[in-house]
Amino acid sequence: MSRIAYVNGRYLPHADAAVHIEDRGYQFADGVYEVIAVKGGQLVDNDLHMARLERSLSELRIAPPMPRRSLKLVMTEVLRRNRVRDGSLYLQATRGVAPRDHPFPAKCRTSLVMTAKRARPFNRRAFEDGVKVITIPDIRWQRCDIKAVALLPNVLGKQQARENGAFEAWQVDEEGVVTEGTSTNAWIVTRDGELVTRQPGNAILNGCTRLALIELARKAGLKIVERPFSVAEAKGARECFLSSTTALVTPVVEIDDAVIGNGKPGSLGQQLLALYLAHAEGDAGA
Amino acid sequence: MSRIAYVNGRYLPHADAAVHIEDRGYQFADGVYEVIAVKGGQLVDNDLHMARLERSLSELRIAPPMPRRSLKLVMTEVLRRNRVRDGSLYLQATRGVAPRDHPFPAKCRTSLVMTAKRARPFNRRAFEDGVKVITIPDIRWQRCDIKAVALLPNVLGKQQARENGAFEAWQVDEEGVVTEGTSTNAWIVTRDGELVTRQPGNAILNGCTRLALIELARKAGLKIVERPFSVAEAKGARECFLSSTTALVTPVVEIDDAVIGNGKPGSLGQQLLALYLAHAEGDAGA
Repeated sequence: MSRIAYVNGRYLPHADAAVHIEDRGYQFADGVYEVIAVKGGQLVDNDLHMARLERSLSELRIAPPMPRRSLKLVMTEVLRRNRVRDGSLYLQATRGVAPRDHPFPAKCRTSLVMTAKRARPFNRRAFEDGVKVITIPDIRWQRCDIKAVALLPNVLGKQQARENGAFEAWQVDEEGVVTEGTSTNAWIVTRDGELVTRQPGNAILNGCTRLALIELARKAGLKIVERPFSVAEAKGARECFLSSTTALVTPVVEIDDAVIGNGKPGSLGQQLLALYLAHAEGDAGA
Repeated sequence: MSRIAYVNGRYLPHADAAVHIEDRGYQFADGVYEVIAVKGGQLVDNDLHMARLERSLSELRIAPPMPRRSLKLVMTEVLRRNRVRDGSLYLQATRGVAPRDHPFPAKCRTSLVMTAKRARPFNRRAFEDGVKVITIPDIRWQRCDIKAVALLPNVLGKQQARENGAFEAWQVDEEGVVTEGTSTNAWIVTRDGELVTRQPGNAILNGCTRLALIELARKAGLKIVERPFSVAEAKGARECFLSSTTALVTPVVEIDDAVIGNGKPGSLGQQLLALYLAHAEGDAGA
């Protein structure tokens, strides 16, 4: 748990960290967020996260809370005060506090909240045995490329996964094509050994771990294609996995009731996990 | 402005009314709300609002914050402390505070926040001259029947309306059919004098004012049909209007650049407004 939270210019004990009830994040989900991994005291893929944060804010026309350089200083201070060397940092920026009314307020100062926590013990079992995912209809809005806090459908999907003994739910559009998980991107390896993940667009969040993995795969000379894939194609794939800041590269060995490949984590996913871990160790200073 | 807010059991000065940064309403839009009109110190259509609140909570499996009777006592106290006899009450209930994680927390106590404010001066011009609406693609999620605080697409739509000199944006699905406004329900009167508004379903919020108007129209012997209508049908309609707790029955005289009817508020809308105002005065004790 975060012991000290940053809230609009102040470092507060976690219990006292509060925002006004008319913060538009609370009343309208009018805000965005980032979760950034911390490794050896450094923020992993921070440039990717900052670029995405700026894009999300810009798409919603929310003023940046402060320049990127100042933001980095606050982030570092939050890590320091929480003594987090390995874990994650959560950052949320909303349009600010204003009397409740739908349109953008004339005057509003962007709210900024940050917390940091240590990593939970490494979930070795998920990586060694792989996890199950279920498939559910994608009922989200049509701007999933914005990392907004309007996460209610993701909450409902993840809960459905948990109740079905699954780690994640892959969301499926009306054409039977997988968009992404509720908090992770989805990947398959075809029978031809081709690495496939959906192309960026309004239907998915362009994950930072996803972007890092694509670059690592390319550098390693792997064949990678960004395109949609169906549930049927995933179930018949050689291997499947999912990616996110906290799930890294987690093998998927079961989709609904279909066993993937031989039911064991696939080799390409393992290779990418190793590449990613090395990258996170080395590139953390970025 | 609300001077005193109710926040989780306490009556606080507005400036001090705050929720924890890990309230799931703030981080996940994991909550619901109601806006209830107040007339002569009484809550208008309160039974309809309470029934919808209970339904929204139930669909999200959020525990009711308290029994309906206790809720009514708190609502009355909020009105009293703010000396609101004519205005509106805002009520928000979220899943509560828990360490950030998508699935429903094992232990969580529903958060409850309430504010009340006096009515702004009656916007006579909107009722006398009518308003303009624009049409925009409906990009929202597929459970708009739940009155959730995940209102970001509604915010963006309303802002787009304002920037186009319009009062509201009517959202249109992929078939060119109007779903509803960003915070109001949509109505037309056909050339045959038939009153039309979209049937309840996942695509719209079943407005309490909408429900009250349907009953009033039926009692008055008006011909009313609940069915979808296209943008083209609306533009060619005899009259159009929109309804909500705060907009009551507001005539629509322009859609995009098409003038509706003779460009003046229609008679059926005026009749319904009069019926509704009488109902609000008389039924407020409910």
